[in-house]
Amino acid sequence: MKIEDLISQIRQKKSFLCVGLDTDLDKIPKHLLKEEDPIFAFNKAIIDATHPYCVAYKPNIAFYEAYGLDGWKSLERTMAYLNEKHPEIFTIADAKRGDIGNTSTRYAKAFFETMNFDSITIAPYMGKDSVEPFLEFKDRHTILLALTSNQGAFDFQTKNVGGQELYKEVLSVSKTYNGSDRLMYVVGATKADYLLDIRKIVPESFLLVPGVGAQGGSLQEVCKYGITKNVGLLVNSSRGIIYASAEVDFAKSAGKKAQQIQREMEMELAKL
Amino acid sequence: MKIEDLISQIRQKKSFLCVGLDTDLDKIPKHLLKEEDPIFAFNKAIIDATHPYCVAYKPNIAFYEAYGLDGWKSLERTMAYLNEKHPEIFTIADAKRGDIGNTSTRYAKAFFETMNFDSITIAPYMGKDSVEPFLEFKDRHTILLALTSNQGAFDFQTKNVGGQELYKEVLSVSKTYNGSDRLMYVVGATKADYLLDIRKIVPESFLLVPGVGAQGGSLQEVCKYGITKNVGLLVNSSRGIIYASAEVDFAKSAGKKAQQIQREMEMELAKL
Repeated sequence: MKIEDLISQIRQKKSFLCVGLDTDLDKIPKHLLKEEDPIFAFNKAIIDATHPYCVAYKPNIAFYEAYGLDGWKSLERTMAYLNEKHPEIFTIADAKRGDIGNTSTRYAKAFFETMNFDSITIAPYMGKDSVEPFLEFKDRHTILLALTSNQGAFDFQTKNVGGQELYKEVLSVSKTYNGSDRLMYVVGATKADYLLDIRKIVPESFLLVPGVGAQGGSLQEVCKYGITKNVGLLVNSSRGIIYASAEVDFAKSAGKKAQQIQREMEMELAKL
Repeated sequence: MKIEDLISQIRQKKSFLCVGLDTDLDKIPKHLLKEEDPIFAFNKAIIDATHPYCVAYKPNIAFYEAYGLDGWKSLERTMAYLNEKHPEIFTIADAKRGDIGNTSTRYAKAFFETMNFDSITIAPYMGKDSVEPFLEFKDRHTILLALTSNQGAFDFQTKNVGGQELYKEVLSVSKTYNGSDRLMYVVGATKADYLLDIRKIVPESFLLVPGVGAQGGSLQEVCKYGITKNVGLLVNSSRGIIYASAEVDFAKSAGKKAQQIQREMEMELAKL
């Protein structure tokens, strides 16, 4: 997907919501377990109920891998459904991959070609030649981990590297990579005030912001420091939406919750 | 697998060779493409020919993911074969995963339980709570990326963080994690002299050393600086062994190549 198409979808839906599909057999409504493919049945219902209010879906790949082959089948079915029914919606493989050149190319093929994701999350630790193979794919986007929303982010990401924190170094250095115009960044909402500094380094880039809701981040804070004239934000909510209810009306509840967030986003967009 | 069992296997086989199963349909002998599952057919033949000379196998997960469901089937069959025929051999999922707590637990289940790997490679960027979920599994091992063998390693890993390079900070900080006795580390052979400093921080830990052979590292150099009284090394070779020949005799050639490396290792072990 071209970045312009993502922006125009955001303007049209008045939303920059990404719904995280962290689908867990222990958490989905019990009546779905009778289905032949409960994970896909759940995802389909969630997508049907939430798609008017969001612009992106982000399956968390770990949740699918944990179920082995069955999990991969559910993921492929979910992607096939999204690509067929909602080709305008941006898809993110939350995979946090990253490896040496020829291996990264394999991962890129797996997610961009085999499964037709628009984007993938990547860990920066191995540097340039682990990231650039992903950047070679036209109209696909690579979302580099910069500052994550977990406690462990303080182990290394915020440590000082030659005058600035490691996550800022990641932002700065990655701008020199070939194809860096296809980069986006993960920035946790639990550290919203960091966005002020981040915008000095990447003033235009899209940021994928997890941690709003369940993890305690505030949408208003994120927008205050992070929004750009082209919005430049995708704010993710996973558990807060998809597990809004564990009853038979789970999809309706998820839709309501997504709509509620969309309305808050509409107010933020009105300020632009 | 208990670390003692790995050490006793190393002593028995006089080898600390790990064979990397980076299986690529474009590189395997053409006659195998007629098989129902060419990747598994290739892996099985390589395992049958090399197992007397190596103590570990390391499927590079990207190569399997790139083929979607078929790739995962080949990986599961390979692991089932290894677990059945050679339960004494150490298995490494070269996956380079790492995510927030509940997601890391999913990955741990996928690789340690669903596929029964003995170990997995993990990227350290997200810190403590992304690593510890893996360390909770008894007799399973987590191999943290420290210093990788690619050029991009110099982007961040070797940068100075409060007085020492980031990869040393990763080694030091990870020693404070719960279950850190189940940690091993990836250290590229192309930077063998760094091993001297690394051994000051992790004197006993096992190091997984890629980059010998195709990537230019020297086995003698690695041993000079990295070997411990319990060996403490797993040296990986992928392409140099598995693609030693692309003809019908490919497995025999792979076996010969593995044996040749085993003999070099035997000489190094004799020096202990």
